[in-house]
Amino acid sequence: MACPFCDKVANRDQLTAEEHVWTFPHSVALLGPWQFYAGYCVLIARQHATELSQLSDSARQGYLNEMCLLARAIEAVTHPHKLNYELLGNQVPHLHWHLFPRSADDPDRLRPVWFALERADQDPAERQRLQGRVARLDLSAQLRRQLQTLNAATS
Amino acid sequence: MACPFCDKVANRDQLTAEEHVWTFPHSVALLGPWQFYAGYCVLIARQHATELSQLSDSARQGYLNEMCLLARAIEAVTHPHKLNYELLGNQVPHLHWHLFPRSADDPDRLRPVWFALERADQDPAERQRLQGRVARLDLSAQLRRQLQTLNAATS
Repeated sequence: MACPFCDKVANRDQLTAEEHVWTFPHSVALLGPWQFYAGYCVLIARQHATELSQLSDSARQGYLNEMCLLARAIEAVTHPHKLNYELLGNQVPHLHWHLFPRSADDPDRLRPVWFALERADQDPAERQRLQGRVARLDLSAQLRRQLQTLNAATS
Repeated sequence: MACPFCDKVANRDQLTAEEHVWTFPHSVALLGPWQFYAGYCVLIARQHATELSQLSDSARQGYLNEMCLLARAIEAVTHPHKLNYELLGNQVPHLHWHLFPRSADDPDRLRPVWFALERADQDPAERQRLQGRVARLDLSAQLRRQLQTLNAATS
């Protein structure tokens, strides 16, 4: 069966500059659709695996370091109240981290984002609210600038 | 304000053998209350911090390595269909990973656990179902045996 995340990784050259934030050695960072959570990214492992334990020690450590670098870039750009990290794979079992920056003025801030996202499935107005009003292309560019700085600092 | 997870870590000697699975250099693993997800653990950082980016590089890498070791032990003991990793901290902003093993025969397996856990808040029967019927003390002991083996293998 085709894996949609393997397709994304293989065809990342065809992604828009808005969606494609960064290609790391072990993963590809995409700007996610729910920019009410400004800076929300999905970090897809370049290797197809369903669990972290299937990666070699060095690939796993590399992937987790890249998650931390991306998190730092998001924090620097959008200054979240709290960052939520989730690796689930219940629907698409190819390793991917959701990094959801949470805002202090989100009335749902005490709960995981999934309750709001389920409302978005059922309600077009809620969907539009959660897709956000941010300038996506500018946000991607800001994240890239941060990652350039962070990569330079750690290489 | 008192932090409930700082209290847990400081007073871990007073935890039951059922709840206290393991003390790592950077974290403490507890068997969680929702054992419908057999093997569900919470991995609390020993240092009080609200974000991974507040830890030093070595503390952060150590904490993430411990998360991976605990995940391997859970996989070896309960053979989940899928493992869900979540670091949220929206209610208790002290670093802690939820490791939820998911089962193939859970009718909610495509969704995050939080929908079921919210039902448990409102419905005592659902609460009892999600607390599970596993022998908690035996499960903790099995996780400890696995961690002894894994720690031996990585030291």
